[in-house]
Amino acid sequence: MSISPLQQERYQYEPKVPTALAERIEKLGAVESDEPLESEISDEIKKQFPHTAGRPVLRFRAGEGRAAEQRPFRVAVILSGGQAPGGHNVIAGLFDGLKKVHPDSQLFGFQNGPGGILDDDCIELTAELVDAYRNTGGFDIIGSGRTKLESEDQFKRTAEVFRKRNLDALVVIGGDDSNTNAAVLAEYMEREQTGVQVIGVPKTIDGDLKSRYVEASFGFDTASKTYAELIGNIARDANSARKYWHFIKLMGRSASHIALECALQTQPNVCIISEEVSEKGQTLDEIVDQIVTTIVRRAKRGDNFGVVLVPEGLIEAIPEMNALISAINELLGENERYFATLKTFEDQAEWINKKLDRDRSYLFSTLPSEIQRQLLMDRDPHGNVQVSRIDTERLLVDMVDTRINEMKTAGSFHGRFSHQDHFFGYEGRCAFPSNFDADYCQTLGMTAGLLIACGANGYISAVRGLARPSSEWEPGGVPLVGMMTIERRKGKPTPVIKKALVDTSDKPFRRFEEQRETWAVETSYRSPGAIQYFGPPAIADQPTLTIQLEHS
Amino acid sequence: MSISPLQQERYQYEPKVPTALAERIEKLGAVESDEPLESEISDEIKKQFPHTAGRPVLRFRAGEGRAAEQRPFRVAVILSGGQAPGGHNVIAGLFDGLKKVHPDSQLFGFQNGPGGILDDDCIELTAELVDAYRNTGGFDIIGSGRTKLESEDQFKRTAEVFRKRNLDALVVIGGDDSNTNAAVLAEYMEREQTGVQVIGVPKTIDGDLKSRYVEASFGFDTASKTYAELIGNIARDANSARKYWHFIKLMGRSASHIALECALQTQPNVCIISEEVSEKGQTLDEIVDQIVTTIVRRAKRGDNFGVVLVPEGLIEAIPEMNALISAINELLGENERYFATLKTFEDQAEWINKKLDRDRSYLFSTLPSEIQRQLLMDRDPHGNVQVSRIDTERLLVDMVDTRINEMKTAGSFHGRFSHQDHFFGYEGRCAFPSNFDADYCQTLGMTAGLLIACGANGYISAVRGLARPSSEWEPGGVPLVGMMTIERRKGKPTPVIKKALVDTSDKPFRRFEEQRETWAVETSYRSPGAIQYFGPPAIADQPTLTIQLEHS
Repeated sequence: MSISPLQQERYQYEPKVPTALAERIEKLGAVESDEPLESEISDEIKKQFPHTAGRPVLRFRAGEGRAAEQRPFRVAVILSGGQAPGGHNVIAGLFDGLKKVHPDSQLFGFQNGPGGILDDDCIELTAELVDAYRNTGGFDIIGSGRTKLESEDQFKRTAEVFRKRNLDALVVIGGDDSNTNAAVLAEYMEREQTGVQVIGVPKTIDGDLKSRYVEASFGFDTASKTYAELIGNIARDANSARKYWHFIKLMGRSASHIALECALQTQPNVCIISEEVSEKGQTLDEIVDQIVTTIVRRAKRGDNFGVVLVPEGLIEAIPEMNALISAINELLGENERYFATLKTFEDQAEWINKKLDRDRSYLFSTLPSEIQRQLLMDRDPHGNVQVSRIDTERLLVDMVDTRINEMKTAGSFHGRFSHQDHFFGYEGRCAFPSNFDADYCQTLGMTAGLLIACGANGYISAVRGLARPSSEWEPGGVPLVGMMTIERRKGKPTPVIKKALVDTSDKPFRRFEEQRETWAVETSYRSPGAIQYFGPPAIADQPTLTIQLEHS
Repeated sequence: MSISPLQQERYQYEPKVPTALAERIEKLGAVESDEPLESEISDEIKKQFPHTAGRPVLRFRAGEGRAAEQRPFRVAVILSGGQAPGGHNVIAGLFDGLKKVHPDSQLFGFQNGPGGILDDDCIELTAELVDAYRNTGGFDIIGSGRTKLESEDQFKRTAEVFRKRNLDALVVIGGDDSNTNAAVLAEYMEREQTGVQVIGVPKTIDGDLKSRYVEASFGFDTASKTYAELIGNIARDANSARKYWHFIKLMGRSASHIALECALQTQPNVCIISEEVSEKGQTLDEIVDQIVTTIVRRAKRGDNFGVVLVPEGLIEAIPEMNALISAINELLGENERYFATLKTFEDQAEWINKKLDRDRSYLFSTLPSEIQRQLLMDRDPHGNVQVSRIDTERLLVDMVDTRINEMKTAGSFHGRFSHQDHFFGYEGRCAFPSNFDADYCQTLGMTAGLLIACGANGYISAVRGLARPSSEWEPGGVPLVGMMTIERRKGKPTPVIKKALVDTSDKPFRRFEEQRETWAVETSYRSPGAIQYFGPPAIADQPTLTIQLEHS
């Protein structure tokens, strides 16, 4: 890796942490707050977490509460799952927090995700190494991985490795799944009296690890601002060239927070929100209709151009598509042998069409043949349709295109329709963290270190008041079990941290809903521009519109 | 359009223009420089430009040369062709320049490109309007278009419109074609004694309108920095996830300046430069080979990830592909009727394979079937292959994928190869202009205004010394005819401004050539980050590495 001028300059940036954390360590204490937990602890949760359930929310304040134990700590950290801007800052904040607790504390990193623990592949994160990664994007300091730590055997192995290496605690930087597993591991460590503490840190660009106390997952700010930069540029191009409809697919498989934030930032003509589609039970046809109507209305004004945002998980949010996919999975499961004798796509399509009920057969027949092909032929090792690989924005574009051509032929559309397609995801996951994410992650990391020194286990590092200036943020710890609900998985009651989807009754969606009719027809584009790390706070330090609205 | 905080703040930015232009108008003069013209004026050029050939380079200096005529000027401007960041700044600079000449000067804009002149679709660019677009991206202030002003009839119409509207001059903001046409129009205006002056301004993100005096076309800086931001982010992601090879196609049909600049900025594993391919007569097979070799070498180090940059015009630069396309065009032209009777792709492919000579038939047979299909079926109204629609990066990815799979089967590749594909173009054409482009465009625009006031016709606004701080830049005018060469087009000697391709003997390419072996195997990625408009000059005010190296 080679160092650019911006990277060189970002080394000088000192993240702005809350006043509370700037206190000397002697004065800092973890106060047991009387704030209620995220959700009531159910009997099943109590049964599954007998040792760690029932703990209070903790807040760090000056001169109050349980003081940090001022001894050298040996702590390990892992990065779990997809990249998010700010991961390096969490690690730097954790390093600084532990050094604040005691200058002889040491931080270690297991490499390439949770699998690194099982492989006992560990390096010390020295001051020199950490400094080289301050305020940079990426997870490359120790790499990330997608191995899940969830079985009793894996926990046992983890405890062994931690005992061998004489480690006090593990910090898991990850999303909803990784934090769920962190809670189960914390319970294991306490049950087995290993003395190892486990602390989670909320990461995901998707923004769907969010609750009363975890106001945002880190990385969402930088990633959505990067996408909004590009969408704003494209919208300005559309309005200059007056030639193309740009269909832009955005990352966000389960939740549409990214699409919603980008819509608020850039004011496109159409933005589909999966949660709304799911709630209203919209059909594929209705969604295509909404886009076509907008194209027609704009064409009448002479505006044969526009911008459409689509979340990548849309297809799974359309109830009828979900039902169709289940039906196909079921049919192919039941008739595996016979289906295997059908060699051509045409024969397969004919057979499935006969087997499906009327509505589903009709829906199947309206899909572009490329998508039909994917549904029948592109299957995972269990024989299931690979929903995640179906290209939602291609599907929409094809169907819109067909509809517009039909209207042209019928003489009911007199405009032009040409399109360009884009997908933004990898562009934003490893950007230099925005000042917000740099500050937030430094705070999350320091807080994780302090939680360890105050003896916490099974907590997630959590910061309240994110819509206010960072000096006023309230750092603390929230029991992971308090974020859990029970779901039946494989027939067993399983604790999970539910993904926080877009709440269509909350202010961000309502703001979008109020304005989208205007945005649809008029050209109301807004260019947020590239993320600025310098300059006036109104530009360089603002959180997302999502956070601003949620806390307004 | 709605205004973001960054846009609001950019209104306050005052572009930094050369000291020479800060002089009071009374003191400013256009000095006839003894600098030689770009190229010697041939007899054919003299014949075609009897009135405008033979003029000198002009430089603006204090207290010397021909003074500006201090009367109110009425000037019109058009934006021609694809968007480039800084177009609005050129217009603002032109406005400021004309007001400097005389406060009662007026600026008008013909809408939606050169076609706006023929339609006489014109608005006044008032101070209020111009101010609303200062330092913003896009061409939306008056729109752009691709109509070419090149026929005698169009020139006549232009002269009529200009007479009717009592306009003194036209400023053409465009690329090589538009500036060529501007020169021909300038000659026409002089021959017909219309009194209308024509001045060009060098625009194109591709960076291929460049010469001794025109050191850069505007927009190249911002666009290539925007792409480099994204490539840097993706490279960092690749190195964190260690999972994908990212194939990134970049705009730049004829010239690979964008790809080269992005490679210098981000240090990817592979970057293909069309000019080198063409010069060395590389085959498609050799290019695929180069990529596969890099993948194999990295796989041996355990690095199953990487970044490959591909210029969109690559396919046209591969001599054998060009020959194949010509041969197919010829065969289909000669056998149009018979070919039309072949209904399936298989029949068409079989026939063409028999008709092609051995080498071409072999090349055709090695292409992925999707590309074979495009070559035979996706044809323009003249029956020619639509080269520009062939998806170069898909072609490469498919061929690389096939080769790797063959090696896997043969047991000679033991790594993994998964890929993600990207195309960046529209993302960068309408970004907020970088400080460099904002300063450069303001200077180009002011200079165009001063050239008009000094009586120049058939000149391009040109600024030297771009590698130095903007205060030291040397604004001036260069005769367009001096940039022309004669090409035979449709059997007639036709004056053209040749596209400036990447010079493989110049420093930017040589720097790349020196380092690419290292970049190929090692992970040497560099993250330039988002364009910064504020902060230290080392970050906010640097020109491209291309310019820095060209003038080092």
